[in-house]
Amino acid sequence: MRQPAHGGNLAWAAALAGCSPDAILDFSASISPLGPPNSAIAAILSQIGNLKHYPDPNYSELRLALSHFHQLPSEWILPGNGSAELLTLIGRELAQLAATILITPAFGDYYRTLKSYNAKVLECPLSFVTGHWSLVIGHLSLTKDKGLLLNNPHNPTGKIFSRDSILPYLEQFALVVVDEAFMDFVLPNEEQSLIQVVQEYRNLVVLRSLTKFYSLPGLRLGYAIAHPDCLAKWQLWRDPWPVNTLAAAAAIAALQDTEFQQQTWAWLPPARNQLFQGLAEIPGLQPQVSAANFLLVESQQSTLQLQQQLLQHHQILIRDCLSFKELGDRFFRVAVRSDSDNQRLLTALSGE
Amino acid sequence: MRQPAHGGNLAWAAALAGCSPDAILDFSASISPLGPPNSAIAAILSQIGNLKHYPDPNYSELRLALSHFHQLPSEWILPGNGSAELLTLIGRELAQLAATILITPAFGDYYRTLKSYNAKVLECPLSFVTGHWSLVIGHLSLTKDKGLLLNNPHNPTGKIFSRDSILPYLEQFALVVVDEAFMDFVLPNEEQSLIQVVQEYRNLVVLRSLTKFYSLPGLRLGYAIAHPDCLAKWQLWRDPWPVNTLAAAAAIAALQDTEFQQQTWAWLPPARNQLFQGLAEIPGLQPQVSAANFLLVESQQSTLQLQQQLLQHHQILIRDCLSFKELGDRFFRVAVRSDSDNQRLLTALSGE
Repeated sequence: MRQPAHGGNLAWAAALAGCSPDAILDFSASISPLGPPNSAIAAILSQIGNLKHYPDPNYSELRLALSHFHQLPSEWILPGNGSAELLTLIGRELAQLAATILITPAFGDYYRTLKSYNAKVLECPLSFVTGHWSLVIGHLSLTKDKGLLLNNPHNPTGKIFSRDSILPYLEQFALVVVDEAFMDFVLPNEEQSLIQVVQEYRNLVVLRSLTKFYSLPGLRLGYAIAHPDCLAKWQLWRDPWPVNTLAAAAAIAALQDTEFQQQTWAWLPPARNQLFQGLAEIPGLQPQVSAANFLLVESQQSTLQLQQQLLQHHQILIRDCLSFKELGDRFFRVAVRSDSDNQRLLTALSGE
Repeated sequence: MRQPAHGGNLAWAAALAGCSPDAILDFSASISPLGPPNSAIAAILSQIGNLKHYPDPNYSELRLALSHFHQLPSEWILPGNGSAELLTLIGRELAQLAATILITPAFGDYYRTLKSYNAKVLECPLSFVTGHWSLVIGHLSLTKDKGLLLNNPHNPTGKIFSRDSILPYLEQFALVVVDEAFMDFVLPNEEQSLIQVVQEYRNLVVLRSLTKFYSLPGLRLGYAIAHPDCLAKWQLWRDPWPVNTLAAAAAIAALQDTEFQQQTWAWLPPARNQLFQGLAEIPGLQPQVSAANFLLVESQQSTLQLQQQLLQHHQILIRDCLSFKELGDRFFRVAVRSDSDNQRLLTALSGE
């Protein structure tokens, strides 16, 4: 089997480790270890009897729940079959512009969708100086006929850009797409979402995912927030029932589960800090400061070799960074998991 | 609320009937009343614990199950988020040709997807003579730079085209897309699927759905069968995880459920025949012969008015044919349901 381009490919990992997929301890997919919330599972079970009906093509209840959650009129919200489905629609939109500035290293699927519509891509690498990542877009790129695609917090570095640092780009680009797949992991008093200004800018699109925070990547649920005219156009670019009934129900329950949200915010900062400290103490490894539920780690050793050893000796899967071509074989990414899982990773890494 | 363009919009119907969506007896969506099979539900429940993992992006197990089912190598099979998702990819493919011949009346989503990629559409109406539908494509349309999109059995007429009658088009069109969403309702010794010849024609695409036969429209599952090069290209036009984990598991179980399949084939012909006879006996109504699990009915009365009366007086929803512009207000479509449901429809229609 080929080296997978995304995290979470357990079939591939299990074959290499010589065990069942269930036995793999997965640090490669950046999914919360706390979920799925019981409320979401209960909602899924309650809807099994409704699978014999088509989903409501307007997804009215789901959009209402998202509307309450974000304090935004529901016409500004479009649910999708994972944010990945919506990203493809956005790729088509970006392809109509002269070029798209892509902040790199970038999630492989950004390239896939832009290439699939023959969009012109101009890569703008984050600068990496003394262990810190920062964003500087050259003046030549700043013209009103281009688009900008970035994610915040940034994957795989974990860097968070302040809202104020992104706002000027809304004046300088024809379309600004901010993938906030990991923003809900940031504490409410520290988050930097652009959603609160979306009604002020016709050229702003925010992408969100319910996959990571609520641990439901198998169910597929994300949403886009943008001007209603834009969403209405995209709706015609896709089929009438992209979101399955169970995902819609799980999302409604999860959004209302403030207890689960509080638990996540209470768990993440200390767990991430402890994992960071543990990694920093291992010779040859240098973790990067992160606002998300994962850590990017610089390694003096080949991470491909390390990945293989961890799989074969410990049934632990880490995310190599080969699909991020700027990072290559000297970086890997790990999700923050429970204290005991994190400790298992640290022990395994110390032994390799 | 607007008149819906598809069947199965229970939220709309319930608002008009003044009842809850659960109370509506839905003849508008052409879904089997026998399912979902218990095997599929059990498979869904068994996978709830796996929702915290991403689906296998290769969908290897699902493609293997489909491969066994159709006796076809798995590279020829691409699962999708309902066949509607795959139809959108096919619309993009067809748009690259000089024009697409669309057999009409046609499912509204065919127009949506073709229009969304600016495909040139040439409508080719079925001829309707003495209560029978037949397909004649004018010679002018038969050029090697065009595509052909039809469904078989045809929706909404229920007409089935023989395999032999379609084969010549494979020599005459650059691409032939046959949507076989209802083919599994045809008894195995009578079915006319093109799947058995797909390996002989690089320009043939067959679309299948698991939604209707297995009563799972809320879960979203369909698949395309075509040349592997074609499928590999489409795979790059969409996100990596279009099929959710529960749908993949349900499909595998359903395909192996030969008992459910036999039950369906034993139920449909007599139930359809009885409903046909009952409708034919009602003055002003003329049902059409159908190979699928629905009947198109010609009516001397306005069907929009009839639809409204049935909803308000009987909480019964029938499918008006306004979205099929060739049919307009003088046709409606009803699914074949259980004997008692069918009787309830007949009684209601007799009273209006």
